[in-house]
Amino acid sequence: MPYLLQVDFPYQGPWGKEMASASRDLAESIAGEPGLIWKVWTENQAMGEAGGIYLFDDLPNAEAYLAMHSQRLKSFGVPVVNAKIFQVNEALSRIDRAPL
Amino acid sequence: MPYLLQVDFPYQGPWGKEMASASRDLAESIAGEPGLIWKVWTENQAMGEAGGIYLFDDLPNAEAYLAMHSQRLKSFGVPVVNAKIFQVNEALSRIDRAPL
Repeated sequence: MPYLLQVDFPYQGPWGKEMASASRDLAESIAGEPGLIWKVWTENQAMGEAGGIYLFDDLPNAEAYLAMHSQRLKSFGVPVVNAKIFQVNEALSRIDRAPL
Repeated sequence: MPYLLQVDFPYQGPWGKEMASASRDLAESIAGEPGLIWKVWTENQAMGEAGGIYLFDDLPNAEAYLAMHSQRLKSFGVPVVNAKIFQVNEALSRIDRAPL
């Protein structure tokens, strides 16, 4: 059963293409995380926030990633990490074309 | 350029299959919203929360949906709606297999 992890935190850039260059190695590392199905990278320069939406194959993998990633973000100087883990309602999501 | 809308709110059920039955008509309506690419339906019975992660084709469609949906949730008795809209960093997301 897939689980969704939503993460956001205060962030001051870089943004857009510069963010993509700065975080390419990190994205390649994340692609190999156990149980990761996909991650959408999010950013909002006007609000000064960034984050990610992740789909994992099960709850233990989502929880283990969140614990590791929270520590990593703090090591980058991120002061607070907002995170929630949800089950996915697959029947409703499929009606709305969700890529599960 | 795709925009991601994350929404969650206090929710007391129904959950799982009962939630799917109760919200099937709503999901079919949401599938036809202007600019919606997909929605993942989320739920967490232990935390008493539910929500959705949406991908829209542009910012005006995401903002218009959020305004409408917030009013709808309030009409359902939802006391508070947590919502954030983000740009998607497409280069990083594609490295992590994101379905954009």
